[in-house]
This record gives sequence, structure tokens and C-alpha cells, in this order.
Amino acid sequence: MVRINDHYLKLKAGYLFPEIARRVNAFAEANPEAAVIRLGIGDVTEPLPEACRTAMTQAIEDMGDRSRFKGYGPEQGYGWLREKIAAQDFQSRGCPVDASEIFISDGSKCDCGNILDILGSDNRIAVTDPVYPVYVDTNVMAGNTGDGNDRGEYDGLRYLPISAENNFTATIPSEPVDLIYLCFPNNPTGAVASREHLQAWVDYARSHGSLILFDAAYEAYITDPAIPHSIYEIPGARDCAIEFRSFSKNAGFTGTRCAFTVVPKTLTGKTIDGQIVELWGLWNRRQSTKFNGGSYIVQRGAEAVYSPAGQSQIQALIQFYLENAAIVRQQLTAAGFSVYGGVNAPYVWVKTPQGLSSWDFFDQLLQRCHVVGTPGSGFGSAGEGYFRISAFNSRANVEEAMQRITKEF
Amino acid sequence: MVRINDHYLKLKAGYLFPEIARRVNAFAEANPEAAVIRLGIGDVTEPLPEACRTAMTQAIEDMGDRSRFKGYGPEQGYGWLREKIAAQDFQSRGCPVDASEIFISDGSKCDCGNILDILGSDNRIAVTDPVYPVYVDTNVMAGNTGDGNDRGEYDGLRYLPISAENNFTATIPSEPVDLIYLCFPNNPTGAVASREHLQAWVDYARSHGSLILFDAAYEAYITDPAIPHSIYEIPGARDCAIEFRSFSKNAGFTGTRCAFTVVPKTLTGKTIDGQIVELWGLWNRRQSTKFNGGSYIVQRGAEAVYSPAGQSQIQALIQFYLENAAIVRQQLTAAGFSVYGGVNAPYVWVKTPQGLSSWDFFDQLLQRCHVVGTPGSGFGSAGEGYFRISAFNSRANVEEAMQRITKEF
Repeated sequence: MVRINDHYLKLKAGYLFPEIARRVNAFAEANPEAAVIRLGIGDVTEPLPEACRTAMTQAIEDMGDRSRFKGYGPEQGYGWLREKIAAQDFQSRGCPVDASEIFISDGSKCDCGNILDILGSDNRIAVTDPVYPVYVDTNVMAGNTGDGNDRGEYDGLRYLPISAENNFTATIPSEPVDLIYLCFPNNPTGAVASREHLQAWVDYARSHGSLILFDAAYEAYITDPAIPHSIYEIPGARDCAIEFRSFSKNAGFTGTRCAFTVVPKTLTGKTIDGQIVELWGLWNRRQSTKFNGGSYIVQRGAEAVYSPAGQSQIQALIQFYLENAAIVRQQLTAAGFSVYGGVNAPYVWVKTPQGLSSWDFFDQLLQRCHVVGTPGSGFGSAGEGYFRISAFNSRANVEEAMQRITKEF
Repeated sequence: MVRINDHYLKLKAGYLFPEIARRVNAFAEANPEAAVIRLGIGDVTEPLPEACRTAMTQAIEDMGDRSRFKGYGPEQGYGWLREKIAAQDFQSRGCPVDASEIFISDGSKCDCGNILDILGSDNRIAVTDPVYPVYVDTNVMAGNTGDGNDRGEYDGLRYLPISAENNFTATIPSEPVDLIYLCFPNNPTGAVASREHLQAWVDYARSHGSLILFDAAYEAYITDPAIPHSIYEIPGARDCAIEFRSFSKNAGFTGTRCAFTVVPKTLTGKTIDGQIVELWGLWNRRQSTKFNGGSYIVQRGAEAVYSPAGQSQIQALIQFYLENAAIVRQQLTAAGFSVYGGVNAPYVWVKTPQGLSSWDFFDQLLQRCHVVGTPGSGFGSAGEGYFRISAFNSRANVEEAMQRITKEF
């Protein structure tokens, strides 16, 4: 009989967000009149920038004209998009990234998971705790971990706690690890990494031959000019880091779908018998064989992000969400909550009141305030006692949610 | 140092189509004045149906209005699309497929590769020879095979030859295999499977507990009313088959990107210790964790395929390509070639003339006729001596290509 991938059975419960959806749906069914405000999943709410819409509408017209029709595109993405990304996201910041090192995809969640395809199953892996669950779950599914315990921790993963106690800055391990997931600005804590912290990671990775998987999905929210937007702003990073970027949070593409991954040609790994192999070629082969390129229409929309109009429109969007985050910070601080993040990130990380567990606070917030957030413990055991509030919503909803919370707690 | 997935190093040369592109580009650079006609890669050439374009333009307008804006959609795809697929592609043909069993994606190539994520690494796997290379290469990359030999065959795969000698109908193995890739209408040979042949496979799979991966990307090209369009037209298939479908070839979505996979809730596999597990839950978990749903805009375009206007427009497209295929068959037959397929499929499978090898014929066709086709041996060693000609091109190009070929050979 056909054999399944047994590693899937190690996964604990559902992926966090489906579990939240389940509880919210149950509540909404039982309380159909309640006006639930969702500050849970990190999903944007405001219209897609006009520049992107105009470009995509034009692309659809192209598709209606035989001479401009586009069939299969390059599996790596169109050159015109890769060139603009290389120039404006990287070279303009002094990062020596070439267009050929940029791989367009339909989403960062896919890329973060798929990258494991080209890596061995015997790497020592470090993740922060709390952490974006996809990093952990995809490693479990790939067989890179042992079993999970009741706290949702898996054997074989090295967890690096981040909390208010260490200012949300992981201690760099003293022992060697081969694969390190870093996310800055951080999901879920909203913390950022200083240049010095990133340099320390790059130095560590280079001295151990480790690979850093750097998730920069939220880089557009950085307001502090001292904070790097890309790992490639750090000398040496081209020898040890892959970077994931997305149009989801800067241009509101969560439902439109476009992202990219940077794989420098200078990156290497080794085979079981010590042969050195370039990672670029492996990822290029992976994408050529298991992916057929992003939608032409969507790639044209992403290209428009780099036009002057697009840049100004996405800046307005980001500014809007950051103002929401500032309101959340301000209101909750005034009500006596301890809050973190939300300055260089669209997430505010809140200590739960009255020593409530994360899920208990989730349930109370839902029942008493009809507000949905994300339990910190869903991101890892060190997130217990914390709660993530997303700034992605309308101004009115954010203000209303804060009124309800500060009235009840 | 970080370890790579060593299995990638077993892969032979490039994936077939990049290798063709390399040779064509080299020729085009050396002969810039040559008007190359591409009948190689199976890529559509005609404009996207108006119904799809109208729906996508409307979807972009939705994205510009806060009240209609769509962020993250369901990872499984939108219900309105899944319902229409279930009703019109399956239930209308008597196939008991439920909307919840349909998973929308950005491409069948992705799905065919990704499905291995949920399966074990110790399955005995059968593929036809010749075969769509993605089935083989993704198994090599996943570590499900041994090394390859000079003919491109990998240890651990069971190859089932299909050629003119057996009327392009694989002999069902006498020994047990766990995983079977079938593609009908077939890429590359253009052959179709009778109801009896599919019933024999389903009976085999049920008696051995095997899983059939049924690729029906070309089902829209079936003209013979006796030929099943879906494996689920065969009694018992819900217990043993996953089906892959795509909008690439019926609606011209190769550059727009949308496909779907059907995973019946009745399918099971087993763990190493014999526990029976439902595959639907595993695939649902895989898609929830490693995929973020298809683009809302593109899904609206796919939905329009099921409107009366969409249906009539895609029928016109398919008819157009089938007429191209008929011209290819007719002209090459008249010139003395032995031709197969092209009646219920957009591919014509041609015996190379004068005993030429597939790649020698490829090079001669390119040099002498400036026509690009696909060498049969690129699909497997039993494809040696054959050549695939695609019907995807303008009428004028197809006629011109046939004139050039019949004049030279």
C-alpha cells in the first residue's frame, strides 16, 4: 500500500491561523450580531495601490492581443521585474545583489517552505522562540526534527528564546548550528535587529559555514534609519544568507500574491562527502522543475511598485498602518499594558494582563470585546503570556477595538 | 557547514525545456535573420478568452475598493471556484467529486511535484517511458530514486514503455507498485486511454493499495465521446486516484497561472507501522502550511471559464489548436512520416525520418527548417526515434512550418 510521509503526524494541532479561524467562526455563529474586529492574522485591509491596479489592467489587455500575449514566463520571473528589484531594493542601499540572484514567486510562505527542498535533512537548525510557525512546521514535515512535546517544541530544533528579558534579541548560540531562521522586523514581536546584531550573526554564520534564512517581509515598516532593511547591508552576508521578501505587506498583495527570494551566487553548501556545491544552481533547478513562474499579470503589478507613483502609494499605505500601530501602542500603554514593537513593524506585542495565558486572553478578548488577536504561545512556548495585535485594519476599527479593550481590561 | 540535498546531484543535465531553449537561443544568436517557428514547448499562443479578461479586470476593480478588497484567501482556493469546478467538470460527468476535495493552485507542475511532500520515500514508483520529465525529476530530487544511467533512467523507478509497438498503451505491471503516474491525453505521445484501460489500472491500484497520480491537463482536447475525461469516471477511482487539472491548455493560462488538484476524502495511505491515514488531511495541511492560496484576480479569471461565454470561448480555442494538430498530421502523413496522437490531444508524436536520433532530428529541423520541436528521447529512452510537435501556434506558423518540413524531408 502507498506509504505516506509519517513526519506529518508529528505536527501538533492545526497551523495556528486555521485554529484561530475555527474559534472565531464558532463565536460568530453563536453571536451573529457581534461586530467582530480582526486584528489577528497579519492581513492587510486597504485597497491595492492604484499604480499596481493600472499596471495589471494593462497586463490583462496585453493578454487579449496575440502580439502581446504572454504564455509561460521564465521560472525565475521576468527580467524587467528582477532588474527593478535589484536596483531599487538592494543596489540603492549599497547591497551587491544582481538581478539574476532574484527569484520571483507567488509567496514568501511558499519560498520559506520550499527552500528546504535543496537542503539536507541532517542540518542543525536554530529558530527563535516565539517564531513564525511556518519555519518550524515545514521542518517537521520535511523530517528535519524529532517528535514534538506538549509545549509544541520539537526534538532536534535549537530554540533561541526572545522576550522582554533579553530585549527580544536572541543570544547567539555557543555551539555550531547549520541553518538559522531570522525574521526582522520580527513577526510576531515587532522587534528589529541592529546592524551590530546582524553583523554578529553573519560573523557567526561565516565562521561555522551556516546558512541564514533571513525573512524581511516587513522591511518596509522600518522607520529608524539606523536599522538595516536587508541582510546584504551587512558585509559578508552574501556568503551566508538567503533573503525572503514579499509584496504582501508593503503593497497589500496578500490576495494578489507575489514575493521573491534572493539567492546569492556566492552561497555554498556541502554534500555528505564534503563536496562544495553552489546553492544558486540548486534553487534554480528546484524552481525550473517544480514551479512555472509567477503570473505575468501579477508580476506587472509588482513592477508598478517601483514606479514613482507606486512608491508614493505604498509609502502612504505603510504610513497608514504604522499610525494604526502607534494608536495601539499609545492606548494600551495608557491602559497599563506592557507593549513592545509597533514602531518599525506592523505588529504590537503585548504582555497579557493579570497573568492570563495567551489563549485565555484570546478567548476573553473575543468574548468580552469581540476583538481577535493572536495568542503569543501560538508562536512558541516563550511567547506564552504575550499577545500579538496587528495594525492591519481600518482606522475606525483600530480605534474602536482599542476603546473596547481599554474599557474591559 | 550547511548540508545540501545530495539527491539534486543525481539529476541528469538540465530539465528538458531549458536545454531546448539553450540550443534555440544559440541558433537564433548565430542566425539573427532566421524566422524560427516554435512548436517545441507546449505553450499556448492565442489571446486569453475575453470572459476571463473581463472577470480579472473586474477583480482588479474589487481590489481598489476597500469593501470588496481581498486579502489572504483560503489556502484551498475560493469556494465559488471550487463549487463550479466540482459541478461542471466532475458532477456533470457523473463523477462524485465534492468541492471540498478540490484544491486550487498556481500550476499543475507545482502540484505534481508538491504531492510528493505528503508521501513516503519508500514507495515503489511506476512511470511510463516516454514521460513528462517533471514526474521523474521531482522523485529524484525527493530522494525516491537511486542514481541515473546514461539513458536517463533512474534506479528504483519502474519504467513502462509506450511506443507504436504496444499502441502507446502501457502493460500493467505484474508485480506490485505503490505509486503510478498516468497522463491522459498523454504528454508527449498524444495517446488517450480507453475506459477499459483505465478500469484495469483502477482495479490494479485497488487490489495493491496503490495510488494513481492522474494528470488530466489535456482533457479538454478529447474529441472521442467514448474516452473518459476524468479518472473519476471509472468506478473505484475515488479509492485510489488523485487527479491534476489545469487552466493552462484549455483557457490559455500558461502565463496567467491557475490549476487544481482533486484529492478525494476516501483516499488513504499507511504509515511505516501500518496505520491508515487519510491523504486529504495531509494535503490540506501541506497546502495550509506551504501555500497561501491562488491570486484572487486569477481565480476570478478561472471562474469565468465556467460561464456560458467562457465555455464557448475556450471551445473555440481548443477547436483552433485541434485544427492545427489535424494539419500537422495530414501534412506529415502525406510526406511519408509515421504520425500518432493529435486527434484527442494538442501533441502530434512523429517517428523521426531516416532513422535519425531524436536530438539529431531536432538539430536538423532547427538548422534546415528553423522549426523547433521536442526530441522524444528527452521524455525517456523509449522516446528515442520519436519527436513531439505541438499544435500550439498560429495557423500561419503551423502551415509554414509544415511546408518547410515537408520540403526538406
